Amino acid sequence: MKDNDQISENTLLSKIENPKDLNKIKNLDILCNEIRKKLIEVVSNNGGHLASNLGVVELTVSLCKIFNSPEDKIVWDVSHQSYVHKMLTGRLDKIDTIRKENGISGFTNRKESPYDAFTQGHSSASISAALGLASAKKINKESGHTVAVIGDGALTGGLAYEGLNNAGRFKKNFIIVLNDNQMSISKNVGAVARYLAAARIRPSYMKAKNAMEKVLNKTSIGIRMKELMKHFKSVVKKVVNPNNIFEDMGFVYYGPIDGHNLKQLEKAFIIAKSLNKPTVVHVIKTKGKGYKPAEENPGIYHGVSSFDAKAGVNSSGNSQTFSSEFGRAMCKIAEKNPKVCAITAAMTSGTGLKEFKNKYKKRFFDVGIAEEHAVTFAGGLAAGGMVPVVAVYSTFLQRSYDQIIHDAALQNLKVVFGIDRAGLTGEDGETHQGIFDVPFLNTIPDIKIYSPSFIEEMEPMLNLAINNSKNLVAIRYPRGTEFRKPGDFAYTGNNFDIYGEKNAETLIVTYGRLFSNAIIAQQDLDGLGIRTDVLKFNVIKPIDGEAVKQILKYKNVIFFEESFKSGAVAEKLGSVLLENNFKGNYFIKVIDDGFVKHASVESQMKKYSLDSDGMKEYITKKCYTS
Amino acid sequence: MKDNDQISENTLLSKIENPKDLNKIKNLDILCNEIRKKLIEVVSNNGGHLASNLGVVELTVSLCKIFNSPEDKIVWDVSHQSYVHKMLTGRLDKIDTIRKENGISGFTNRKESPYDAFTQGHSSASISAALGLASAKKINKESGHTVAVIGDGALTGGLAYEGLNNAGRFKKNFIIVLNDNQMSISKNVGAVARYLAAARIRPSYMKAKNAMEKVLNKTSIGIRMKELMKHFKSVVKKVVNPNNIFEDMGFVYYGPIDGHNLKQLEKAFIIAKSLNKPTVVHVIKTKGKGYKPAEENPGIYHGVSSFDAKAGVNSSGNSQTFSSEFGRAMCKIAEKNPKVCAITAAMTSGTGLKEFKNKYKKRFFDVGIAEEHAVTFAGGLAAGGMVPVVAVYSTFLQRSYDQIIHDAALQNLKVVFGIDRAGLTGEDGETHQGIFDVPFLNTIPDIKIYSPSFIEEMEPMLNLAINNSKNLVAIRYPRGTEFRKPGDFAYTGNNFDIYGEKNAETLIVTYGRLFSNAIIAQQDLDGLGIRTDVLKFNVIKPIDGEAVKQILKYKNVIFFEESFKSGAVAEKLGSVLLENNFKGNYFIKVIDDGFVKHASVESQMKKYSLDSDGMKEYITKKCYTS
Repeated sequence: MKDNDQISENTLLSKIENPKDLNKIKNLDILCNEIRKKLIEVVSNNGGHLASNLGVVELTVSLCKIFNSPEDKIVWDVSHQSYVHKMLTGRLDKIDTIRKENGISGFTNRKESPYDAFTQGHSSASISAALGLASAKKINKESGHTVAVIGDGALTGGLAYEGLNNAGRFKKNFIIVLNDNQMSISKNVGAVARYLAAARIRPSYMKAKNAMEKVLNKTSIGIRMKELMKHFKSVVKKVVNPNNIFEDMGFVYYGPIDGHNLKQLEKAFIIAKSLNKPTVVHVIKTKGKGYKPAEENPGIYHGVSSFDAKAGVNSSGNSQTFSSEFGRAMCKIAEKNPKVCAITAAMTSGTGLKEFKNKYKKRFFDVGIAEEHAVTFAGGLAAGGMVPVVAVYSTFLQRSYDQIIHDAALQNLKVVFGIDRAGLTGEDGETHQGIFDVPFLNTIPDIKIYSPSFIEEMEPMLNLAINNSKNLVAIRYPRGTEFRKPGDFAYTGNNFDIYGEKNAETLIVTYGRLFSNAIIAQQDLDGLGIRTDVLKFNVIKPIDGEAVKQILKYKNVIFFEESFKSGAVAEKLGSVLLENNFKGNYFIKVIDDGFVKHASVESQMKKYSLDSDGMKEYITKKCYTS
Repeated sequence: MKDNDQISENTLLSKIENPKDLNKIKNLDILCNEIRKKLIEVVSNNGGHLASNLGVVELTVSLCKIFNSPEDKIVWDVSHQSYVHKMLTGRLDKIDTIRKENGISGFTNRKESPYDAFTQGHSSASISAALGLASAKKINKESGHTVAVIGDGALTGGLAYEGLNNAGRFKKNFIIVLNDNQMSISKNVGAVARYLAAARIRPSYMKAKNAMEKVLNKTSIGIRMKELMKHFKSVVKKVVNPNNIFEDMGFVYYGPIDGHNLKQLEKAFIIAKSLNKPTVVHVIKTKGKGYKPAEENPGIYHGVSSFDAKAGVNSSGNSQTFSSEFGRAMCKIAEKNPKVCAITAAMTSGTGLKEFKNKYKKRFFDVGIAEEHAVTFAGGLAAGGMVPVVAVYSTFLQRSYDQIIHDAALQNLKVVFGIDRAGLTGEDGETHQGIFDVPFLNTIPDIKIYSPSFIEEMEPMLNLAINNSKNLVAIRYPRGTEFRKPGDFAYTGNNFDIYGEKNAETLIVTYGRLFSNAIIAQQDLDGLGIRTDVLKFNVIKPIDGEAVKQILKYKNVIFFEESFKSGAVAEKLGSVLLENNFKGNYFIKVIDDGFVKHASVESQMKKYSLDSDGMKEYITKKCYTS
C-alpha cells in the first residue's frame, strides 16, 4: 500500500461487474488489497468516509459472495460504509464521482441501484427497514434472506432496539450483522457498549470447541445441518458466557469473529443462512484497516474532505468554524454560569465540544446516538434546575420532535439547542441536509430561534439564549465557516436590523449566512440603479412585531431563505403580512424541493438562486421587468 | 367492595395530607381498600384510567412511604396511573375534579404539584427524564433518590432503551421500578415481553434463599448493610437465572416481587435505597386489582368514560366512530387488495383494527409501543412491494417525524397513515391533543393529506389513499364520532367543494369535522341577512390550485382550523394568497395556544370560537362591524 497508482484495467477489481463474479476469483485477498487502494484514492480525491470503508472490505466481499443480492436484501445502516458495496455492485466505473454533483451518492440509495435495498443516512434504522423487507418477502412467499448490517455505535439508538425487539420474533431468514468497530463516531457510551466490550474478549464460538468445527466444516461444504444446529445451540450455551443480550431478545448469537478473516466471515454467513432463525453475527473489525494513518486515528478519518493520500489528513485544523466558535463560547459561558450543561449525541468533536468535555467533565454528557433521550434527559436536567444545551446536527434533531414538544415545550422547560449543520450541507446530500429544522421548530409553541450570520455573532447570541431566555430556545448555524463578509456588521442585539436608507420600494428579507449574499446583491443592484433595503432577522421565531410594521411599508418584499419552503419563516411572514392587510407584492425564493442532492454548497445555492447573482436576477425579474 | 358510598371524613385516607402521614397509619391494608373505593367512585363518575390505577395502589403507598418526596423525585411513566399518587400528595380534595375543566389533570403535571417531578403523558420517557433529574442532583450535590416507575408495555419504546442504556452507567441513587402489568394497552409484543414472561415464573429473589431473608430483616430494621450487599449480589447471581437483560445493561436487578404485598414492596424499596447503584425493582401486579369487572377485563377498563360502578362498563359498544369505520373500510379494501398491510403501535383496539387483525393475520403487525419502528418498518414493507397502512394516534405520530422524512418521503415510498384522534381530544388534555399533526406533516415533502368531515367519507377517502396515491399519504380524523350533520353532504371525490351560491363576498374556509359547525354558522348568518359561502377542503395538502383561484375572488376570507396555528393550513394558505396577489381581507381563527388543557371537546371548541356560535360571532365581528 505504499504507492497510490490508479487501478489498472488488469486488476481483479476491474473484472467484477456484479457480486456473482466474486465466485470466479480465487485469491480474494488480492482483491481486498485492490479495493483498499481504490478507497484511499477515491476518498483522498473526493472526501468522504474512509476509516469505516477500509474496515468493511472483507465483510462486504464476503456478504456479496455468500448472499444472492439483489434477491437477498442487504440493508446497510447509515450506509456511509457502502463504498465497497458500490464497487462490487456495478458502480466501479462511477466510484470516482462519489459525492460529486451528478455523481453517485455517498450513501445507499434505492433510486441508484437495485442492489441498494433501502436508502439510508441516519443511524439505527436498518433493522426496522430490513424487517419490513423480510416481512414483505414472507407475505409474498418469496424466498431469500434479508440482512441488516449495523455498527456498534448505531445500536445505542432506540430505533435499533425497537427493531431488535420486533425482529426477535421473526421466524426465519433474518440476519443482523453487528459490524463492531469498537467505537462509534465519538467514543462509544452506555451499557450496550460495555456489554460489547466484554463480549469481545470472550473466546469466539468458532474456536471454542472442536464439535463446533465439525459443524462448520460440514456446512461449509454445503450440507444443511438442521438437526446439528440444535446441538450447536446447546454447545454454545455451555461454552460461552450465557449473559448475551441478543439471545435474551430472541436471536441466535454467533461470534465474535474476526472481520478481516475472509474464511471466518464466509463460514459465519453460510451458517447464518442455514439456521432459518433470526441470527446476530458479531463481527469485530479494525477501523481504517490497511491505511496506517486511518488505523491510528480512525476518528479523524471517519468523514474527511479531500486530502493528500501520501501525507495523510492535516488534522491541526485551526480554521475557525461556527462549531469551533460554539464550543469556545460554551466554555466561556459555562465558566461564569455553573448551571450550564452540554449534551451531545455522539458528536462531541463535530459540535465543537471537545474542550468543554475536558474542562467541565461533570456537566458534559455524551449520550451516544440517542437524540430522543438527549432531549428528554435535557428536560430532566432543566426540571432539576440546570441549563442544558443540546448540541446536535439539524438533520438529527428531526428525531427529537416529540421530545421537544412533550418533554420540554409543554413544561416550559428551558432547554437550549445548538443546531449545527443547519441549512444546505453539500456533499452528504439528501439524507443530511439541514433544511427541515426551521419548518418543524416553527410548529413548536414558545420556542425562540436565533440565527447568526457571522461567527462573531455566535457568542452574544448564545449568551442571550443561555442567560436571558425563559423558555425553550435554539441557535442555528451552518456547517463550516461564514460566507465572505461584505462589510462591517457588528451584532446589534436586536431581533432584526434593516440595512440601507430604509426608504427603498423594495425590501430583501433574509437571515443566517444568506445575509452576506443579500448585501452583495444589494450592492450589485445599486450599481444597476435599483435601490433596495435588506432586513436581517437575528431572531427568526417569533417574528418581531416591529419588523412586520416596517415590512408593511414596502411595495415589494422578497424573502430569500435557506430552508425547505413548507412551514418555514417566509411562508409564516406571508400569512402575517396578509393578516395585517399588506397590499404590496410578496415573493419567496427558497428551497422548494424537499430533498437536495449531493453537490457543493456553492452549487446548491446557485441552483435555488440563493447566491448573490441569483438573488440579483430574481429581484430584477420579479420587480423590475414588465 | 360491594357498595359505592362516598368516602366519609372519618376514613384513614381523609387524614393523609402528604406522604409523611403514611407513617402514622398502622394498617395500610385498610387504607388501600379505601383508595380502591375512591378510585372506582372517581373513575365511574369522570371517566379515566381505572385498571392501571387499581393495580398500583400498594405500589404507590409503598413508594410514598419509603421515599422522601418531593426531595426524592418520582417520575411516573405515561402517568395515567398517577391517581393514587395524587390522592396521597395533597390532592385528595380535588380528586373528584380529575380530568374535568378547571380540575386536576389525569396525568402528572409539574405545574400542578411539587410532587409531580415531571409532566408525562407519552410513553417511555420516564427513565430519561429521571436520569436528568438525578444528574442535576449530582451536579448540585443534593442528596436523595430518583425513581422512574415504568410499565412493561412502555419498555418496548426505543426512548426507554436509550434511557436504560445511559442510566446503567449512573453510579448511585437511581432506581427503576418495573411496573409489570403482564400486558400493555393491547397485548404485549416482542422480545422484551417474552423475556419478562420468563422472568415472572422464576423464583423470586426474596424467597429463594434464607441468606437473603437475613439481609432483608436487617435492612428492614434500618441498618445499612453495605458490606452485606456484596454478598447479596453474589448470592443473587448464583440463585437466579443469570440471563438478565437488566444486569446486562449495568443494573442491579431485584425481583420479581408481588406488587400487592405491602411488606415485600417496602422491603424492596428499602434495599434499593441502600444499594447506591442503579437498580431495577421488578414488581408484578394484577391490573384492575380489587374490582372484579376490571380484573376480568383490564383492556376495557384501561381508559373508560364514566360508567355505573355497580353494573360496570357496557362494552357492547356498537356506536359507530371514525375508528370503527376506519377498521371496517380497511377490511373491505384489504379483501380486494392483497398488498394492504396494517401496522399499529399497541393500539389495535383503539384504532379499530381488531377485525383486520383476525381476518388478515399475516398482514397485521402490532409492533408494541414503538412508533418510530412502525414507520421505518412500514417503509421496508413498501420497498418490498406492499402497501402498509400505519394506524396511529395523532399525538403519538409526533414520535416518527424523522422516520416519515428519512425512511418514507425521501425514498418516495408509499406509506399510508391513518391518523386517529386528530384535533382536540378533550379530557386527556395537554399531552394528548392531536393539534400538531397538520403543522408537522405540512413540512413533509410530497405527502397528501385527506380530512373527512363525516364518517361516510372515510371509506372512499381511504380507498383513494390506498389505491390511487403514488407517494406518502395520510387520512386524519377525530376521536369518536362526527358532529351533528346539518344537511345532506355526499362525498364528491373532489379536493375541495364550495357550498353556497358561490357569489357571496365572504368565504368561510375549513375542513374536517369543523365543516358541520361552519355550515350551521352559514345558516345562522343567512338568518341575519349575511350571505356566505363555505369552502370545504377534502385534501388539505397540497392546497389545490383551483381552490386558490376561487378563494382569490372573495373580499373576506375566514379560515377556521382545528389545529395549532403555527405551520398549519390557514397560515400556508395565507402566504399562497399573498404570493398570488390577493387584495382582500384574511382572517384566521385557530388554536393559538400550543397546549390545550383538559375539558370536554365541546368546551374546548367554544374556547377557540370553533363552535358554530363562535364562528358566527367571529365573522360578524371581523367583517360586519365597523
